[in-house]
Amino acid sequence: MKKHEDAYGRLILEYLEKGEGFEIVERDDGSIAAGNYGPAAYFAPFRRWPKAERKALRFARGRVLDVGCGAGRVALELQERGHEVVGIDVSPLAVEVARRRGVKDARKLPVTRVDRRLGRFDTFVMFGNNFGLTGSRRRAPWLLRRFRSLANEGARILAESVNPYTTDNPDHLAYHRRNRRRGRMAGQLRIRIRHGHYRTPWFDYLLASPEEMAELAEAGGWRLERVIDEGEAVYVGVLSLAEGR
Amino acid sequence: MKKHEDAYGRLILEYLEKGEGFEIVERDDGSIAAGNYGPAAYFAPFRRWPKAERKALRFARGRVLDVGCGAGRVALELQERGHEVVGIDVSPLAVEVARRRGVKDARKLPVTRVDRRLGRFDTFVMFGNNFGLTGSRRRAPWLLRRFRSLANEGARILAESVNPYTTDNPDHLAYHRRNRRRGRMAGQLRIRIRHGHYRTPWFDYLLASPEEMAELAEAGGWRLERVIDEGEAVYVGVLSLAEGR
Repeated sequence: MKKHEDAYGRLILEYLEKGEGFEIVERDDGSIAAGNYGPAAYFAPFRRWPKAERKALRFARGRVLDVGCGAGRVALELQERGHEVVGIDVSPLAVEVARRRGVKDARKLPVTRVDRRLGRFDTFVMFGNNFGLTGSRRRAPWLLRRFRSLANEGARILAESVNPYTTDNPDHLAYHRRNRRRGRMAGQLRIRIRHGHYRTPWFDYLLASPEEMAELAEAGGWRLERVIDEGEAVYVGVLSLAEGR
Repeated sequence: MKKHEDAYGRLILEYLEKGEGFEIVERDDGSIAAGNYGPAAYFAPFRRWPKAERKALRFARGRVLDVGCGAGRVALELQERGHEVVGIDVSPLAVEVARRRGVKDARKLPVTRVDRRLGRFDTFVMFGNNFGLTGSRRRAPWLLRRFRSLANEGARILAESVNPYTTDNPDHLAYHRRNRRRGRMAGQLRIRIRHGHYRTPWFDYLLASPEEMAELAEAGGWRLERVIDEGEAVYVGVLSLAEGR
Protein backbone atom coordinates (compact mmCIF):
# COMPACT_ATOMS: atom_id res chain seq x y z
CA MET A 1 0.00 0.00 0.00
CA LYS A 2 1.49 3.30 -1.08
CA LYS A 3 1.42 6.20 1.35
CA HIS A 4 -1.27 8.16 -0.52
CA GLU A 5 -3.45 5.04 -0.51
CA ASP A 6 -3.65 4.81 3.27
CA ALA A 7 -6.81 6.90 3.61
CA TYR A 8 -8.19 4.60 6.29
CA GLY A 9 -5.03 4.73 8.38
CA ARG A 10 -4.76 8.47 8.00
CA LEU A 11 -8.35 8.85 9.17
CA ILE A 12 -7.81 6.86 12.33
CA LEU A 13 -4.42 8.43 13.04
CA GLU A 14 -6.04 11.88 12.88
CA TYR A 15 -8.87 10.65 15.05
CA LEU A 16 -6.33 9.38 17.60
CA GLU A 17 -4.58 12.73 17.62
CA LYS A 18 -7.52 15.14 17.34
CA GLY A 19 -10.57 13.14 18.36
CA GLU A 20 -12.45 14.05 15.23
CA GLY A 21 -12.82 12.99 11.65
CA PHE A 22 -15.32 11.79 9.11
CA GLU A 23 -15.08 8.62 7.09
CA ILE A 24 -15.85 9.15 3.42
CA VAL A 25 -16.83 6.02 1.51
CA GLU A 26 -17.18 6.19 -2.25
CA ARG A 27 -18.97 3.41 -4.12
CA ASP A 28 -18.21 2.43 -7.69
CA ASP A 29 -21.64 3.58 -8.89
CA GLY A 30 -20.65 7.17 -8.09
CA SER A 31 -22.39 7.38 -4.75
CA ILE A 32 -20.57 8.84 -1.79
CA ALA A 33 -21.34 9.09 1.89
CA ALA A 34 -19.70 10.49 4.99
CA GLY A 35 -20.25 9.82 8.64
CA ASN A 36 -18.49 10.24 11.93
CA TYR A 37 -19.54 6.75 12.93
CA GLY A 38 -16.45 5.22 11.41
CA PRO A 39 -13.57 6.65 13.38
CA ALA A 40 -15.43 6.68 16.72
CA ALA A 41 -16.51 3.07 16.28
CA TYR A 42 -12.95 2.00 15.56
CA PHE A 43 -11.94 3.23 19.00
CA ALA A 44 -15.01 2.13 20.94
CA PRO A 45 -14.55 0.41 24.29
CA PHE A 46 -16.21 -3.00 24.75
CA ARG A 47 -19.41 -1.61 26.28
CA ARG A 48 -20.10 0.38 23.10
CA TRP A 49 -19.53 -2.45 20.67
CA PRO A 50 -22.43 -3.77 18.61
CA LYS A 51 -24.49 -6.22 20.61
CA ALA A 52 -23.65 -9.20 18.40
CA GLU A 53 -19.92 -8.61 18.91
CA ARG A 54 -20.28 -8.41 22.67
CA LYS A 55 -22.12 -11.72 22.71
CA ALA A 56 -19.76 -13.34 20.21
CA LEU A 57 -16.65 -12.55 22.18
CA ARG A 58 -17.61 -15.35 24.57
CA PHE A 59 -16.69 -17.77 21.81
CA ALA A 60 -13.12 -16.52 21.54
CA ARG A 61 -10.53 -18.84 23.00
CA GLY A 62 -6.80 -19.44 22.91
CA ARG A 63 -4.53 -17.67 20.47
CA VAL A 64 -6.38 -15.13 18.33
CA LEU A 65 -5.85 -13.58 14.90
CA ASP A 66 -7.59 -10.20 14.74
CA VAL A 67 -8.28 -9.75 11.04
CA GLY A 68 -8.29 -6.09 10.01
CA CYS A 69 -7.37 -4.89 13.48
CA GLY A 70 -7.69 -1.17 12.66
CA ALA A 71 -7.14 0.97 15.75
CA GLY A 72 -6.91 -2.20 17.84
CA ARG A 73 -10.11 -2.16 19.90
CA VAL A 74 -10.67 -5.93 19.59
CA ALA A 75 -7.04 -6.88 20.12
CA LEU A 76 -6.84 -4.66 23.22
CA GLU A 77 -9.96 -6.19 24.73
CA LEU A 78 -8.73 -9.71 24.07
CA GLN A 79 -5.26 -8.96 25.43
CA GLU A 80 -6.90 -7.72 28.60
CA ARG A 81 -8.81 -10.97 28.84
CA GLY A 82 -5.53 -12.86 28.74
CA HIS A 83 -5.43 -13.97 25.13
CA GLU A 84 -2.37 -13.94 22.96
CA VAL A 85 -3.42 -11.83 19.98
CA VAL A 86 -1.90 -11.06 16.63
CA GLY A 87 -3.52 -8.09 14.88
CA ILE A 88 -3.08 -7.66 11.15
CA ASP A 89 -4.09 -4.79 8.94
CA VAL A 90 -3.27 -3.74 5.40
CA SER A 91 -2.96 -0.13 6.55
CA PRO A 92 0.49 0.90 7.82
CA LEU A 93 -0.94 3.82 9.79
CA ALA A 94 -3.63 1.64 11.35
CA VAL A 95 -0.91 -0.70 12.57
CA GLU A 96 0.96 2.30 13.97
CA VAL A 97 -2.19 3.45 15.79
CA ALA A 98 -2.87 -0.04 17.15
CA ARG A 99 0.68 -0.24 18.48
CA ARG A 100 0.54 3.20 20.04
CA ARG A 101 -2.64 2.16 21.80
CA GLY A 102 -0.99 -0.88 23.30
CA VAL A 103 -1.56 -3.78 20.91
CA LYS A 104 1.47 -5.94 21.58
CA ASP A 105 1.64 -7.70 18.22
CA ALA A 106 0.21 -5.67 15.35
CA ARG A 107 1.52 -6.37 11.87
CA LYS A 108 1.11 -4.71 8.52
CA LEU A 109 -0.20 -7.55 6.40
CA PRO A 110 -2.98 -7.87 3.83
CA VAL A 111 -5.39 -10.60 4.82
CA THR A 112 -4.60 -12.40 1.57
CA ARG A 113 -1.01 -12.85 2.73
CA VAL A 114 -1.60 -14.64 6.01
CA ASP A 115 0.55 -17.74 6.25
CA ARG A 116 2.22 -20.15 8.63
CA ARG A 117 4.78 -17.58 9.73
CA LEU A 118 2.03 -16.10 11.91
CA GLY A 119 1.82 -19.36 13.83
CA ARG A 120 -1.43 -21.21 14.48
CA PHE A 121 -4.64 -19.89 15.93
CA ASP A 122 -7.61 -21.03 17.93
CA THR A 123 -9.80 -18.08 16.96
CA PHE A 124 -10.02 -15.81 13.95
CA VAL A 125 -11.93 -12.63 14.68
CA MET A 126 -13.51 -10.67 11.83
CA PHE A 127 -15.37 -7.94 13.68
CA GLY A 128 -16.34 -4.54 12.35
CA ASN A 129 -18.13 -6.39 9.54
CA ASN A 130 -14.78 -7.73 8.46
CA PHE A 131 -16.22 -10.90 7.02
CA GLY A 132 -16.48 -8.31 4.26
CA LEU A 133 -12.76 -8.78 3.62
CA THR A 134 -13.56 -12.17 2.10
CA GLY A 135 -14.68 -9.99 -0.79
CA SER A 136 -16.42 -12.27 -3.25
CA ARG A 137 -17.83 -15.69 -4.05
CA ARG A 138 -14.48 -16.73 -5.43
CA ARG A 139 -12.18 -15.20 -2.88
CA ALA A 140 -14.09 -16.14 0.28
CA PRO A 141 -13.55 -19.91 0.07
CA TRP A 142 -9.92 -19.39 -0.93
CA LEU A 143 -9.32 -17.15 2.07
CA LEU A 144 -11.21 -19.39 4.47
CA ARG A 145 -9.09 -22.34 3.38
CA ARG A 146 -6.04 -20.26 4.08
CA PHE A 147 -7.34 -19.63 7.61
CA ARG A 148 -7.95 -23.34 7.88
CA SER A 149 -4.30 -24.03 7.18
CA LEU A 150 -3.43 -21.92 10.26
CA ALA A 151 -6.15 -23.34 12.46
CA ASN A 152 -5.60 -25.43 15.56
CA GLU A 153 -7.99 -28.25 16.28
CA GLY A 154 -11.34 -26.89 17.41
CA ALA A 155 -10.65 -23.47 15.90
CA ARG A 156 -13.40 -20.96 15.22
CA ILE A 157 -13.96 -17.94 13.10
CA LEU A 158 -16.10 -15.16 14.57
CA ALA A 159 -17.34 -13.54 11.40
CA GLU A 160 -19.36 -10.37 11.54
CA SER A 161 -21.40 -9.21 8.59
CA VAL A 162 -24.39 -7.11 7.64
CA ASN A 163 -27.25 -8.99 6.07
CA PRO A 164 -27.81 -6.90 2.93
CA TYR A 165 -31.36 -8.19 2.50
CA THR A 166 -32.65 -6.44 5.61
CA THR A 167 -32.57 -3.05 3.87
CA ASP A 168 -35.48 -1.33 2.18
CA ASN A 169 -33.35 1.59 1.04
CA PRO A 170 -34.14 1.94 -2.70
CA ASP A 171 -30.59 3.05 -3.42
CA HIS A 172 -29.12 -0.06 -1.82
CA LEU A 173 -31.67 -2.28 -3.54
CA ALA A 174 -30.74 -0.75 -6.91
CA TYR A 175 -27.11 -1.45 -6.15
CA HIS A 176 -27.95 -5.09 -5.39
CA ARG A 177 -29.64 -5.41 -8.79
CA ARG A 178 -26.68 -3.76 -10.48
CA ASN A 179 -24.39 -6.30 -8.84
CA ARG A 180 -26.52 -9.26 -9.83
CA ARG A 181 -26.62 -8.12 -13.44
CA ARG A 182 -22.82 -8.20 -13.34
CA GLY A 183 -22.65 -11.67 -11.86
CA ARG A 184 -21.61 -10.35 -8.47
CA MET A 185 -23.16 -11.15 -5.13
CA ALA A 186 -25.88 -8.64 -4.22
CA GLY A 187 -24.00 -7.33 -1.20
CA GLN A 188 -20.61 -7.21 -2.87
CA LEU A 189 -19.77 -3.54 -2.45
CA ARG A 190 -17.00 -2.10 -4.56
CA ILE A 191 -15.77 0.85 -2.56
CA ARG A 192 -12.82 2.98 -1.64
CA ILE A 193 -12.12 5.23 1.35
CA ARG A 194 -11.13 8.82 0.68
CA HIS A 195 -9.60 11.27 3.10
CA GLY A 196 -8.03 14.54 1.99
CA HIS A 197 -5.62 13.59 -0.78
CA TYR A 198 -5.57 9.97 0.36
CA ARG A 199 -7.60 7.32 -1.42
CA THR A 200 -7.47 3.59 -1.01
CA PRO A 201 -7.53 1.42 -4.11
CA TRP A 202 -11.00 0.18 -4.99
CA PHE A 203 -11.77 -3.02 -3.12
CA ASP A 204 -14.62 -5.50 -2.78
CA TYR A 205 -16.28 -5.59 0.60
CA LEU A 206 -18.89 -8.30 0.95
CA LEU A 207 -22.09 -8.02 2.92
CA ALA A 208 -23.51 -11.52 3.22
CA SER A 209 -26.67 -13.02 4.65
CA PRO A 210 -26.27 -15.92 7.10
CA GLU A 211 -27.28 -18.28 4.28
CA GLU A 212 -24.59 -16.89 2.02
CA MET A 213 -22.05 -17.03 4.82
CA ALA A 214 -22.94 -20.69 5.41
CA GLU A 215 -22.41 -21.48 1.75
CA LEU A 216 -19.09 -19.68 1.50
CA ALA A 217 -17.93 -21.27 4.75
CA GLU A 218 -18.84 -24.72 3.48
CA ALA A 219 -16.86 -24.11 0.29
CA GLY A 220 -13.90 -23.03 2.42
CA GLY A 221 -13.82 -25.97 4.79
CA TRP A 222 -15.77 -24.44 7.66
CA ARG A 223 -19.27 -24.87 9.02
CA LEU A 224 -21.59 -22.10 10.19
CA GLU A 225 -22.38 -23.48 13.61
CA ARG A 226 -24.30 -20.64 15.15
CA VAL A 227 -25.66 -17.25 14.17
CA ILE A 228 -25.63 -14.60 16.87
CA ASP A 229 -28.43 -12.05 16.40
CA GLU A 230 -29.92 -13.89 13.45
CA GLY A 231 -32.59 -11.74 11.84
CA GLU A 232 -30.81 -8.51 12.75
CA ALA A 233 -28.95 -6.51 10.13
CA VAL A 234 -25.65 -6.93 11.97
CA TYR A 235 -24.88 -10.47 13.08
CA VAL A 236 -21.93 -12.67 13.89
CA GLY A 237 -21.51 -16.13 12.45
CA VAL A 238 -19.55 -18.64 14.51
CA LEU A 239 -17.73 -20.92 12.09
CA SER A 240 -16.06 -24.12 13.15
CA LEU A 241 -13.76 -26.43 11.26
CA ALA A 242 -15.63 -28.83 9.02
CA GLU A 243 -14.42 -32.37 9.53
CA GLY A 244 -12.35 -34.29 7.03
CA ARG A 245 -11.68 -31.59 4.48
CA MET B 1 -29.40 22.83 -12.42
CA LYS B 2 -30.37 19.24 -13.06
CA LYS B 3 -31.84 17.23 -10.25
CA HIS B 4 -28.77 15.04 -9.74
CA GLU B 5 -26.66 18.20 -9.51
CA ASP B 6 -28.46 19.57 -6.46
CA ALA B 7 -26.15 17.96 -3.90
CA TYR B 8 -26.19 21.06 -1.73
CA GLY B 9 -29.97 21.30 -1.68
CA ARG B 10 -30.33 17.61 -1.03
CA LEU B 11 -27.96 17.90 1.92
CA ILE B 12 -29.90 20.68 3.57
CA LEU B 13 -33.28 19.12 2.80
CA GLU B 14 -32.14 15.94 4.54
CA TYR B 15 -30.79 18.00 7.41
CA LEU B 16 -34.14 19.73 7.71
CA GLU B 17 -35.96 16.41 7.79
CA LYS B 18 -33.55 14.28 9.83
CA GLY B 19 -31.33 16.74 11.67
CA GLU B 20 -28.16 15.07 10.43
CA GLY B 21 -25.86 15.05 7.48
CA PHE B 22 -22.30 15.68 6.42
CA GLU B 23 -21.17 18.05 3.75
CA ILE B 24 -18.61 16.54 1.40
CA VAL B 25 -16.50 19.01 -0.54
CA GLU B 26 -14.24 17.77 -3.31
CA ARG B 27 -11.51 20.00 -4.67
CA ASP B 28 -10.15 19.81 -8.21
CA ASP B 29 -6.73 18.64 -7.02
CA GLY B 30 -8.32 15.38 -5.83
CA SER B 31 -8.62 16.34 -2.19
CA ILE B 32 -11.85 15.68 -0.36
CA ALA B 33 -13.17 16.59 3.04
CA ALA B 34 -16.30 16.06 5.07
CA GLY B 35 -17.70 17.81 8.06
CA ASN B 36 -20.95 18.25 9.88
CA TYR B 37 -20.26 21.94 10.18
CA GLY B 38 -21.97 22.69 6.89
CA PRO B 39 -25.57 21.70 7.37
CA ALA B 40 -25.77 22.81 11.00
CA ALA B 41 -24.28 26.21 10.16
CA TYR B 42 -26.83 26.71 7.39
CA PHE B 43 -29.61 26.48 9.96
CA ALA B 44 -27.93 28.36 12.79
CA PRO B 45 -29.91 30.98 14.70
CA PHE B 46 -28.42 34.48 14.94
CA ARG B 47 -26.67 33.87 18.25
CA ARG B 48 -24.60 31.08 16.68
CA TRP B 49 -23.52 33.00 13.61
CA PRO B 50 -19.86 33.89 13.10
CA LYS B 51 -18.94 36.98 15.05
CA ALA B 52 -18.22 39.09 11.97
CA GLU B 53 -21.71 38.37 10.59
CA ARG B 54 -23.40 39.34 13.83
CA LYS B 55 -21.56 42.65 13.85
CA ALA B 56 -22.08 43.25 10.13
CA LEU B 57 -25.83 42.84 10.30
CA ARG B 58 -26.03 46.29 11.89
CA PHE B 59 -25.13 47.67 8.47
CA ALA B 60 -28.12 46.12 6.74
CA ARG B 61 -30.86 48.54 5.87
CA GLY B 62 -33.90 48.77 3.63
CA ARG B 63 -34.69 46.18 1.01
CA VAL B 64 -32.25 43.26 1.04
CA LEU B 65 -31.03 40.73 -1.51
CA ASP B 66 -29.79 37.61 0.30
CA VAL B 67 -27.30 36.13 -2.15
CA GLY B 68 -27.09 32.34 -1.88
CA CYS B 69 -29.79 32.16 0.75
CA GLY B 70 -29.43 28.42 1.38
CA ALA B 71 -31.73 27.26 4.15
CA GLY B 72 -32.73 30.88 4.77
CA ARG B 73 -31.12 31.71 8.10
CA VAL B 74 -30.14 35.26 7.04
CA ALA B 75 -33.39 36.04 5.26
CA LEU B 76 -35.39 34.83 8.27
CA GLU B 77 -33.41 36.99 10.68
CA LEU B 78 -33.78 40.05 8.47
CA GLN B 79 -37.48 39.45 7.95
CA GLU B 80 -37.90 39.35 11.68
CA ARG B 81 -36.10 42.66 11.92
CA GLY B 82 -38.64 44.16 9.54
CA HIS B 83 -36.70 44.12 6.29
CA GLU B 84 -38.18 43.20 2.96
CA VAL B 85 -35.91 40.39 1.77
CA VAL B 86 -35.51 38.51 -1.48
CA GLY B 87 -33.50 35.33 -1.15
CA ILE B 88 -31.94 33.74 -4.20
CA ASP B 89 -30.20 30.44 -4.57
CA VAL B 90 -29.11 28.32 -7.50
CA SER B 91 -30.32 25.21 -5.68
CA PRO B 92 -33.99 24.31 -6.18
CA LEU B 93 -34.10 22.25 -3.00
CA ALA B 94 -32.44 25.01 -0.97
CA VAL B 95 -35.17 27.37 -2.14
CA GLU B 96 -37.76 24.79 -1.13
CA VAL B 97 -36.17 24.50 2.33
CA ALA B 98 -35.99 28.28 2.74
CA ARG B 99 -39.68 28.59 1.85
CA ARG B 100 -40.66 25.78 4.18
CA ARG B 101 -38.83 27.57 6.97
CA GLY B 102 -40.72 30.77 6.37
CA VAL B 103 -38.72 32.85 3.92
CA LYS B 104 -41.44 34.86 2.18
CA ASP B 105 -39.65 35.51 -1.09
CA ALA B 106 -37.12 32.84 -2.01
CA ARG B 107 -36.33 32.35 -5.67
CA LYS B 108 -34.36 29.80 -7.62
CA LEU B 109 -31.88 31.98 -9.46
CA PRO B 110 -28.15 31.74 -10.14
CA VAL B 111 -26.38 34.84 -8.89
CA THR B 112 -25.19 35.51 -12.43
CA ARG B 113 -28.79 35.99 -13.54
CA VAL B 114 -29.84 38.72 -11.14
CA ASP B 115 -31.50 41.57 -13.03
CA ARG B 116 -33.94 44.42 -12.72
CA ARG B 117 -36.92 42.10 -12.44
CA LEU B 118 -35.88 41.57 -8.81
CA GLY B 119 -36.41 45.28 -8.14
CA ARG B 120 -33.83 47.48 -6.44
CA PHE B 121 -32.00 46.93 -3.21
CA ASP B 122 -30.45 48.86 -0.37
CA THR B 123 -28.36 45.96 0.87
CA PHE B 124 -26.81 42.90 -0.72
CA VAL B 125 -25.87 40.26 1.81
CA MET B 126 -23.22 37.68 0.95
CA PHE B 127 -22.87 35.80 4.22
CA GLY B 128 -21.67 32.24 4.69
CA ASN B 129 -18.49 33.32 2.84
CA ASN B 130 -20.64 34.00 -0.19
CA PHE B 131 -18.37 36.69 -1.50
CA GLY B 132 -16.93 33.44 -2.81
CA LEU B 133 -19.70 33.38 -5.41
CA THR B 134 -17.92 36.20 -7.21
CA GLY B 135 -15.64 33.37 -8.27
CA SER B 136 -12.67 34.93 -9.98
CA ARG B 137 -10.74 38.06 -10.87
CA ARG B 138 -12.76 38.37 -14.07
CA ARG B 139 -16.17 37.49 -12.80
CA ALA B 140 -16.16 39.47 -9.57
CA PRO B 141 -16.15 42.97 -11.13
CA TRP B 142 -18.74 41.88 -13.68
CA LEU B 143 -21.03 40.58 -10.95
CA LEU B 144 -20.48 43.58 -8.70
CA ARG B 145 -21.44 45.91 -11.58
CA ARG B 146 -24.55 43.87 -12.00
CA PHE B 147 -25.38 44.42 -8.32
CA ARG B 148 -24.67 48.10 -8.88
CA SER B 149 -27.31 48.23 -11.56
CA LEU B 150 -29.86 47.07 -8.97
CA ALA B 151 -28.60 49.31 -6.20
CA ASN B 152 -30.50 52.17 -4.63
CA GLU B 153 -28.58 55.26 -3.63
CA GLY B 154 -26.49 54.59 -0.57
CA ALA B 155 -26.60 50.84 -1.10
CA ARG B 156 -24.15 48.46 0.56
CA ILE B 157 -22.83 45.01 0.06
CA LEU B 158 -22.05 42.99 3.18
CA ALA B 159 -19.47 40.61 1.79
CA GLU B 160 -18.13 37.80 3.92
CA SER B 161 -14.98 35.99 2.98
CA VAL B 162 -12.15 33.95 4.42
CA ASN B 163 -8.72 35.50 4.13
CA PRO B 164 -6.78 32.64 2.54
CA TYR B 165 -3.44 34.01 3.68
CA THR B 166 -4.14 33.40 7.37
CA THR B 167 -3.61 29.65 6.94
CA ASP B 168 -0.42 27.75 7.65
CA ASN B 169 -1.89 24.46 6.47
CA PRO B 170 0.70 23.08 4.02
CA ASP B 171 -2.01 21.51 1.92
CA HIS B 172 -3.81 24.83 1.48
CA LEU B 173 -0.54 26.64 0.80
CA ALA B 174 0.31 24.10 -1.90
CA TYR B 175 -3.10 24.68 -3.43
CA HIS B 176 -2.46 28.44 -3.47
CA ARG B 177 0.79 27.86 -5.36
CA ARG B 178 -0.97 25.56 -7.79
CA ASN B 179 -3.54 28.26 -8.44
CA ARG B 180 -0.93 30.96 -9.01
CA ARG B 181 0.93 28.77 -11.46
CA ARG B 182 -2.33 28.57 -13.41
CA GLY B 183 -2.93 32.30 -13.36
CA ARG B 184 -5.71 31.98 -10.83
CA MET B 185 -6.09 33.88 -7.60
CA ALA B 186 -4.50 31.99 -4.69
CA GLY B 187 -7.80 31.49 -2.88
CA GLN B 188 -9.80 30.59 -5.95
CA LEU B 189 -11.07 27.17 -4.99
CA ARG B 190 -12.42 24.93 -7.70
CA ILE B 191 -14.78 22.61 -5.88
CA ARG B 192 -17.95 20.62 -6.05
CA ILE B 193 -20.32 19.32 -3.40
CA ARG B 194 -21.13 15.62 -3.38
CA HIS B 195 -23.91 13.88 -1.53
CA GLY B 196 -24.95 10.30 -2.26
CA HIS B 197 -25.45 10.16 -6.02
CA TYR B 198 -25.75 13.94 -6.22
CA ARG B 199 -22.88 16.10 -7.34
CA THR B 200 -22.86 19.76 -8.21
CA PRO B 201 -20.99 20.89 -11.28
CA TRP B 202 -17.47 22.13 -10.52
CA PHE B 203 -17.52 25.78 -9.58
CA ASP B 204 -15.07 28.48 -8.55
CA TYR B 205 -15.43 29.74 -5.01
CA LEU B 206 -13.16 32.63 -4.16
CA LEU B 207 -11.51 33.21 -0.82
CA ALA B 208 -10.13 36.75 -0.87
CA SER B 209 -8.08 38.87 1.50
CA PRO B 210 -9.45 42.33 2.38
CA GLU B 211 -6.90 43.83 -0.04
CA GLU B 212 -8.10 41.60 -2.84
CA MET B 213 -11.72 42.35 -2.00
CA ALA B 214 -10.95 46.07 -2.14
CA GLU B 215 -9.40 45.70 -5.58
CA LEU B 216 -12.23 43.63 -7.00
CA ALA B 217 -14.78 46.01 -5.49
CA GLU B 218 -13.02 48.99 -7.04
CA ALA B 219 -13.07 47.31 -10.46
CA GLY B 220 -16.79 46.66 -10.01
CA GLY B 221 -17.82 50.16 -9.02
CA TRP B 222 -17.83 49.71 -5.24
CA ARG B 223 -15.57 50.82 -2.45
CA LEU B 224 -14.47 48.73 0.53
CA GLU B 225 -15.48 51.12 3.27
CA ARG B 226 -14.93 49.04 6.33
CA VAL B 227 -13.58 45.64 7.30
CA ILE B 228 -15.26 43.91 10.19
CA ASP B 229 -12.88 41.61 12.06
CA GLU B 230 -9.89 42.59 9.97
CA GLY B 231 -6.99 40.30 10.74
CA GLU B 232 -9.26 37.35 11.47
CA ALA B 233 -9.64 34.52 8.99
CA VAL B 234 -13.36 35.20 8.59
CA TYR B 235 -14.28 38.81 8.02
CA VAL B 236 -17.00 40.89 6.44
CA GLY B 237 -16.28 43.73 4.04
CA VAL B 238 -18.79 46.56 3.93
CA LEU B 239 -18.85 47.85 0.36
CA SER B 240 -20.53 51.08 -0.63
CA LEU B 241 -21.24 52.50 -4.05
CA ALA B 242 -18.25 54.29 -5.53
CA GLU B 243 -19.27 57.67 -6.80
CA GLY B 244 -19.54 58.60 -10.45
CA ARG B 245 -18.99 55.23 -12.07
